[in-house]
Amino acid sequence: MGTQDCDVVVVGAGMSGLTAARTLVDAGLKVAVVEARDRVGGRTLSKTLSNGVVVDMGGQWVAPTQRRVLKLVEALGLKTFKTFDRGLSVALRNGVAHRYAGLLPTDDADVAADVEQGMARIGELAASVPLEAPWTHPLAAQLDQMTYAEWIDRNLLTDLGRWLFRFQAPAVFSVDASELSVLHVAFYFGCAGGPDIITATSGGGQDSRFAGGMQGLAKGLAAGLKDAIHLGQPVDAIIQEGDRVVVRGATLSVTARRAIVALPPTLAGRIRYAPPMPPLRDSLTQRMPMGTALKMMFVYDTPFWRSEGLSGLVLTDCEVPQLVFDNSPEDASCGILLGFTEGIPARSWMQATPAERQAAGVETLAQVFGPRARKVVEYVEHSWTDEEYSRGCYAGTMPPGAWRSFGKALREPVGKIHWAGTETATDWSGYVEGAMQAGERAAAEVLEALRAPA
Amino acid sequence: MGTQDCDVVVVGAGMSGLTAARTLVDAGLKVAVVEARDRVGGRTLSKTLSNGVVVDMGGQWVAPTQRRVLKLVEALGLKTFKTFDRGLSVALRNGVAHRYAGLLPTDDADVAADVEQGMARIGELAASVPLEAPWTHPLAAQLDQMTYAEWIDRNLLTDLGRWLFRFQAPAVFSVDASELSVLHVAFYFGCAGGPDIITATSGGGQDSRFAGGMQGLAKGLAAGLKDAIHLGQPVDAIIQEGDRVVVRGATLSVTARRAIVALPPTLAGRIRYAPPMPPLRDSLTQRMPMGTALKMMFVYDTPFWRSEGLSGLVLTDCEVPQLVFDNSPEDASCGILLGFTEGIPARSWMQATPAERQAAGVETLAQVFGPRARKVVEYVEHSWTDEEYSRGCYAGTMPPGAWRSFGKALREPVGKIHWAGTETATDWSGYVEGAMQAGERAAAEVLEALRAPA
Repeated sequence: MGTQDCDVVVVGAGMSGLTAARTLVDAGLKVAVVEARDRVGGRTLSKTLSNGVVVDMGGQWVAPTQRRVLKLVEALGLKTFKTFDRGLSVALRNGVAHRYAGLLPTDDADVAADVEQGMARIGELAASVPLEAPWTHPLAAQLDQMTYAEWIDRNLLTDLGRWLFRFQAPAVFSVDASELSVLHVAFYFGCAGGPDIITATSGGGQDSRFAGGMQGLAKGLAAGLKDAIHLGQPVDAIIQEGDRVVVRGATLSVTARRAIVALPPTLAGRIRYAPPMPPLRDSLTQRMPMGTALKMMFVYDTPFWRSEGLSGLVLTDCEVPQLVFDNSPEDASCGILLGFTEGIPARSWMQATPAERQAAGVETLAQVFGPRARKVVEYVEHSWTDEEYSRGCYAGTMPPGAWRSFGKALREPVGKIHWAGTETATDWSGYVEGAMQAGERAAAEVLEALRAPA
Repeated sequence: MGTQDCDVVVVGAGMSGLTAARTLVDAGLKVAVVEARDRVGGRTLSKTLSNGVVVDMGGQWVAPTQRRVLKLVEALGLKTFKTFDRGLSVALRNGVAHRYAGLLPTDDADVAADVEQGMARIGELAASVPLEAPWTHPLAAQLDQMTYAEWIDRNLLTDLGRWLFRFQAPAVFSVDASELSVLHVAFYFGCAGGPDIITATSGGGQDSRFAGGMQGLAKGLAAGLKDAIHLGQPVDAIIQEGDRVVVRGATLSVTARRAIVALPPTLAGRIRYAPPMPPLRDSLTQRMPMGTALKMMFVYDTPFWRSEGLSGLVLTDCEVPQLVFDNSPEDASCGILLGFTEGIPARSWMQATPAERQAAGVETLAQVFGPRARKVVEYVEHSWTDEEYSRGCYAGTMPPGAWRSFGKALREPVGKIHWAGTETATDWSGYVEGAMQAGERAAAEVLEALRAPA
């Protein structure tokens, strides 16, 4: 077992841990980052296709209001481009493909009014949540005892309106609406500036993409941290003794004055702590499960749908995929359709083989785009729940009752251990922007603590 | 690191693991039981007061329908006696102590009818759940998207009826009604034969107690297993290689043909598995948090309330305690009031000191029983969420959506690893009876697997 001594040890080289480390190094501290995987980037992971095009198997979009990400893009000299969204979208329901313009797959004014009032209601709730402490909301008890599925049933008045809201929930949270506390939904939308912003392509959560892959952010940060990063070191124990904290990886043990754990709460809960975590913190980590999402890319010679006036955006009532985006490279040198299966269907389909998922996906795409959709030249996919060191995505979510009783333990340091990770953010929680904000906040806590007289 | 080789290695020396081990030893197999603590018994723990009386800090009751427990009581020559329940109960609400006979703290016929129809409705649901596979219930999607709190709001018609149902939920589950899927509530009541049986004293879940403490069951089983039990061996990894499975404790590594993990799912999820758990199983262990309960005993020279015609049963709207039982020894050589704080108030009060809890408890008891309640001669308590190797009690519970997507992974073996623990039971799940049933079932699976040709 190698040993090392430093000021601050960071557990996890995702965007949150790397941002914390960068901030602390800039402040003149000696930092070690201990990472379980053999790579940096956490839930961002870029991959090069056979044709040389780089695609993202994890996080891939950036919104205009994600200022930390955009600043880092500039600092690292990375390149982004607008997500393609010109043309008609398609809704495939009950085997019928319906082309539509605008946000809603219907001309029915009642449905449009219904969705509008639903978005306004959840938007008002989102705006009313105190993001630093959702459990202090005057209606916290009421909002945290109801699932979002029940909220939708009560607040949407049309069948299609309800269907669209139920459809949207796993697209944002990668869990079913039945698994979400209304308070958590309101918090999460609130962190992003509202449900319209989080779900929008242009101007919203899916506004732009990374020419060389979003993992370039993590690689760029890591390059600046050089020898401070130790890969292949899954942490099994964190020991607080006197004025030191010891983080024990597979073959390296790091002793420091402070530790930052930059993992999803459910994974942070699997580490053995000595002394053990206080009961409130431990109970929290039992109650913030990761969502389930399958990300699939179907590569074609060209983005053939564009010439037919289609944007590539598709909503389906099929299981594989449920939601489709045009994910072609900026120069359209090939065509890529990106499909998502999230929430309940992802739980059964994650047990299928890649070939089965590909076949099911191609069938669905052929119903939407015709026989050309069968001419797939390459298929790549990723199932984040399979990853031992993520165990789901996009983020940890709160079932009813968790925020109210345990929310206070989400960020509160325990002795010399501070908590980062996008789940602890208040600005775009669940996104890379949130990961960076959380990393900055945890680093600021540590700097403050180390400056203070003992 | 010591090593050992055997047929079956059992992780956890609670009642489930010990029952599995006993069954396998009886079948002629060589068994090793690996236990993290320095004691057996898991969530049963008996303690001797200064006056020599033995009390239970964990599980303590047995019901007439818990045939496995009763059979073991007989086999071990243990002694049980009926829980004291003669006399009037007391409801303390808004500072007013109201004495009452029967089940309900009111003479209001509307409330009685309301509670009766509520119990009948949840009882019917409970009877309709296929206990082996709750997710196959025809209404599973509907029942698993609603919290029990919402169900209560919709199905109880009177304020007091709602209050009583909200009160009952943490008394049974040690979480708030807002944290429970209706499908889980129906399953759990169904496993015990219905809500009336689970909540009853005489004839029900609290029917009888153990003269020498309920941990005597575990101690008795352990005595028969002798050298097979290895204490002080928290398991950090389980490795499946070829036809063997290796369980790695602190200083002992056991190799076997099969393993039985007899831990609550949330703790089983903290072990590192190689190969890693399949995604469905891992996702399940992220979604079955332990409840929160504080158990407090106030010891007096005599059970003075009995001479005033009181049973000692008290419901309060105070936080400490919420629910009180007469827990005096059979011979009434001293008086003991047992108080519970469960669910939401337990989360704040578990952060207080024992002295603060004692003081708050005495204040409440004095409101009910008068100044004599202040003459406490001994105070003992236990907070199960503090225990590193339980991290809550009485059992793991399912929030909305967990049964539906992940229930299948609760018992399904993964390679050579089988799952026991009361959470996997279908007969009194959550109770010692369920622990024993699950242990027997897991042992039967292993015997079947080892008999089968490879």
